[in-house]
Amino acid sequence: MTIQTNEPMTADLDLPLKPEQENWLKSKIRDVPDFPKPSIIFKDLTTLMKDGEAFHFVLHALAKESARHKPDVIAAIEARGFILAPVIADILRIGFVPLRKPGKLPYKVERVSYELEYGTDTIEMHIDAIDKGQRVVLIDDLLATGGTAAGASSLIEKVGGNLVGVGFVVELGFLDGRKKLAKHSNIFSLVNYK
Amino acid sequence: MTIQTNEPMTADLDLPLKPEQENWLKSKIRDVPDFPKPSIIFKDLTTLMKDGEAFHFVLHALAKESARHKPDVIAAIEARGFILAPVIADILRIGFVPLRKPGKLPYKVERVSYELEYGTDTIEMHIDAIDKGQRVVLIDDLLATGGTAAGASSLIEKVGGNLVGVGFVVELGFLDGRKKLAKHSNIFSLVNYK
Repeated sequence: MTIQTNEPMTADLDLPLKPEQENWLKSKIRDVPDFPKPSIIFKDLTTLMKDGEAFHFVLHALAKESARHKPDVIAAIEARGFILAPVIADILRIGFVPLRKPGKLPYKVERVSYELEYGTDTIEMHIDAIDKGQRVVLIDDLLATGGTAAGASSLIEKVGGNLVGVGFVVELGFLDGRKKLAKHSNIFSLVNYK
Repeated sequence: MTIQTNEPMTADLDLPLKPEQENWLKSKIRDVPDFPKPSIIFKDLTTLMKDGEAFHFVLHALAKESARHKPDVIAAIEARGFILAPVIADILRIGFVPLRKPGKLPYKVERVSYELEYGTDTIEMHIDAIDKGQRVVLIDDLLATGGTAAGASSLIEKVGGNLVGVGFVVELGFLDGRKKLAKHSNIFSLVNYK
């Protein structure tokens, strides 16, 4: 992994980020009020992703922390997790494994259903996506109530993976999503809205 | 971009690939018969993506060819395109722009509907995703009949982008999808099933 050291914002990628790094990232994230429903303020990361410097910083900070947990593969949930996890896999030169919505994966799958605020959701993985005991880091864009990440964790373990870390760009700390991931160690995020 | 040169398969990333490179990649792709419907043989790239070496090769070969077209941003269509394009953006240290299914993007959008074999589909982009005249390379996993890529191309131009290249891992040459992209130059793929 090559890290440039001549820019103040990217000189140090260790977590937790410095307050000025976290504030710089927050300045790249757009608040969209009333999406997907009234009174919710959506944290829109597309403004960060189209900024090459900020996107690069986020990906390499997540990769550096992921590397500490010595993963064999990086996993992510469709669709926004797909924007992040494969980059980290490539930086660490390991494979990427997708968790997808029902009916999207062509080969034999395992599935898990999990509770959401309203109703349930289901995700699938190929039965041979992970070799038994392989170390997996799961990456997603945002930790809210933690329901999706907890469902994904269960599915990764169901297909034989050893979940050794779960990382997010943004954590909505005030929703306490870490509670649902309490059985796992190494939960990390770059930016926290407490 | 750092390219390792001590492995035969990754010594040379220029397109077109050498026959042994193309055959090596084809050996990593799984054929799944009768998906998504009877008599279709689905080219499953998840087996390639979980192989760190093959995935790395694919991403850096696409990045090297993309770089020749001097993009300002890399764009991709939800969901499988998201697995590839952000890595290329990161390798080139530029931004990533998503094209998403209706209702997924939180801010103001432009949209395009396009014909599929049966019915139509719609994709959306944020109106400020691309600055006017920015050079865009679009990346997707697979070129089949070209309908989705042609729709995406129209949308990128509608929001002001200058589409300077369209790249794929796999091209189903026998479906002649390039015909629908004939107005664009620099269509490229790594692996072709003719």
